[in-house]
Amino acid sequence: MKKMGRATMVFDHPPLILDSASIVGPKEGEGPLGKYFDQVWEDPMLGKKTWEEAESELQTKAAQAVLEKAGIPSAKIDYLFAGDLLGQIIATSFGLASFHRPIFGLYGACSTMGEALILSAMCLDGGFASKVLAVTSSHFASAERQFRFPLEYGNQRPLSATWTVTGSGAFIVSRAGSLAKDKGGSVSGVKWENGCPRITMATPGKIVDMGVKDSMNMGACMAPAACDTIETHFRDTHTKPEDYDAVITGDLGYVGHEILVELMGKKGYDMGKVHLDCGIEIFDKDRQDTHSGGSGCGCSAVVLSAMILPRLMDGTWEKVLFVPTGALLSSISFNEGKSVPGIAHAVVLEQGQMRKGAAVFHL
Amino acid sequence: MKKMGRATMVFDHPPLILDSASIVGPKEGEGPLGKYFDQVWEDPMLGKKTWEEAESELQTKAAQAVLEKAGIPSAKIDYLFAGDLLGQIIATSFGLASFHRPIFGLYGACSTMGEALILSAMCLDGGFASKVLAVTSSHFASAERQFRFPLEYGNQRPLSATWTVTGSGAFIVSRAGSLAKDKGGSVSGVKWENGCPRITMATPGKIVDMGVKDSMNMGACMAPAACDTIETHFRDTHTKPEDYDAVITGDLGYVGHEILVELMGKKGYDMGKVHLDCGIEIFDKDRQDTHSGGSGCGCSAVVLSAMILPRLMDGTWEKVLFVPTGALLSSISFNEGKSVPGIAHAVVLEQGQMRKGAAVFHL
Repeated sequence: MKKMGRATMVFDHPPLILDSASIVGPKEGEGPLGKYFDQVWEDPMLGKKTWEEAESELQTKAAQAVLEKAGIPSAKIDYLFAGDLLGQIIATSFGLASFHRPIFGLYGACSTMGEALILSAMCLDGGFASKVLAVTSSHFASAERQFRFPLEYGNQRPLSATWTVTGSGAFIVSRAGSLAKDKGGSVSGVKWENGCPRITMATPGKIVDMGVKDSMNMGACMAPAACDTIETHFRDTHTKPEDYDAVITGDLGYVGHEILVELMGKKGYDMGKVHLDCGIEIFDKDRQDTHSGGSGCGCSAVVLSAMILPRLMDGTWEKVLFVPTGALLSSISFNEGKSVPGIAHAVVLEQGQMRKGAAVFHL
Repeated sequence: MKKMGRATMVFDHPPLILDSASIVGPKEGEGPLGKYFDQVWEDPMLGKKTWEEAESELQTKAAQAVLEKAGIPSAKIDYLFAGDLLGQIIATSFGLASFHRPIFGLYGACSTMGEALILSAMCLDGGFASKVLAVTSSHFASAERQFRFPLEYGNQRPLSATWTVTGSGAFIVSRAGSLAKDKGGSVSGVKWENGCPRITMATPGKIVDMGVKDSMNMGACMAPAACDTIETHFRDTHTKPEDYDAVITGDLGYVGHEILVELMGKKGYDMGKVHLDCGIEIFDKDRQDTHSGGSGCGCSAVVLSAMILPRLMDGTWEKVLFVPTGALLSSISFNEGKSVPGIAHAVVLEQGQMRKGAAVFHL
């Protein structure tokens, strides 16, 4: 069994993230990570007629971009693992149909990027595919229409609210050794593989419902779920915060960050030095009026592509715990007075360089 | 690589469906399969206040029922693979949270039962779990509110329309050999495993968009996708319709059945003798006024539990191709004039008895 403790999967031949691409809208382009995204679109409609079509176009462009960057035709992709926030994940259905590859549609709210990476790694390490594509997206305007108010209504936003990121990230995840094999087992193939970050472990999360009902305070809804998954991961793997260069949640924002650090502190883990949040990294709170931070399926996806993977590849970081977080609600469940449960999926990402003596793949 | 052809996964140690449970509403109980369901609820609200809560309760009860039948506590379930039709799959989030197990939320419209079984089998055969639970649901009234009109509106339904099944099916899928191991490798463990149907192969489907825009004719939207997946499966595995005792789609209904048989005929496959459809099996068209047949995530799930698995266990069938079908739309995509693409995921289910000489699991 490739399992450790209660819930953690261990990948014997850690799949590698071969390449990635991030496509964002104008506000994200003006943020602190602006220059690191692959494409920044000035037009948040991406030339389309509806917000939903614009979000689909983000996915199409992200998938196209990563396939081009890696020089891999879509026919070489075995399966797609993808999702978004919209009802019936229409951004995904209409955004990825044109690639004509078998697809697994996923919904984990804003945690979907974690879910997609875990299932991708499972599929590859299990030997069912050579290369898969993991894609998620979100769009500020389609999400506002879906979850809150039409933009035309001009509602005020409390300081605890987050700003849904307009963006999509796409990732080619590859079976260890398959690239070298493509290249006839050549040394250059091995070298290329060596540069790619690897998915070594994963801890899928439970639904955690603390009864919070405030859809304008997602951080508070999701922090307990993040705490549950991170604590489970530490216990399962006998690690602690100091074993990671960073523990990076998806979109807790400033409000959720404080709650998470406090909750983990009560359990004896000092997260203060290692905790980062994609939602905090993507916007400049003071300059961009984004309140608690960025959120959405696209938030953790584009930050993973533009910030986390590069830092693993340039040696800044050796090992991080990437924990996309999701708030499980719909406008119907909210209007019917239900709470907003949270979920968080954790993925261990490690520097691509093979450690001495570690035989992590076969040629 | 555990892969055959373009898209088909081959499970070396075919995971087994240890047990299943089906919970349905009154209309399904009055249908031809009525006496085979585990629970028939006279009250379609299941004692809850909203249709959505009622659908969540279907999932809760289905999961509870199968765990009880198998005598397995929820703590022994490694992961849940589950989904439903509602926006942000709230029936699943609120229905399965109380089991406190890590969960992968899925959305494949009415094909989700196939998606859940494929990912379950991948997880188990890949060695990442010992037992998982696959669950899907649908509810007539929550689906009408989500996709069409409020029930109070009293709209008329064209003859091509299907009737969303109120029901949930839950399945414990187990790693081959794990049960024998639980029982200390005893002969009784092996015997029990021998009775269970196995998932031997799977062909995940592509999104197929033929431009059909009629949300009241789902059969026509989904039939091309079913055709694509079934043809891919036959090609990948060098099989033909006659190699299966039945090829059972999810919810094409009478309209989609005719289209599928015609489309497959054009490709040289005679499906007339082997094609069955869960949506056709579950209702009596003439007596129950259900027009084209039943539909929904719950349709293929409860028919799998109440009809397909029993026939594999009693020897009526040896090998079937189970192909849940989905129509990918939301009220937003429909109102914005988009087409309704289809998707279908195929799963090969084989009789539990070990074939002579086949070493399908290790003790």
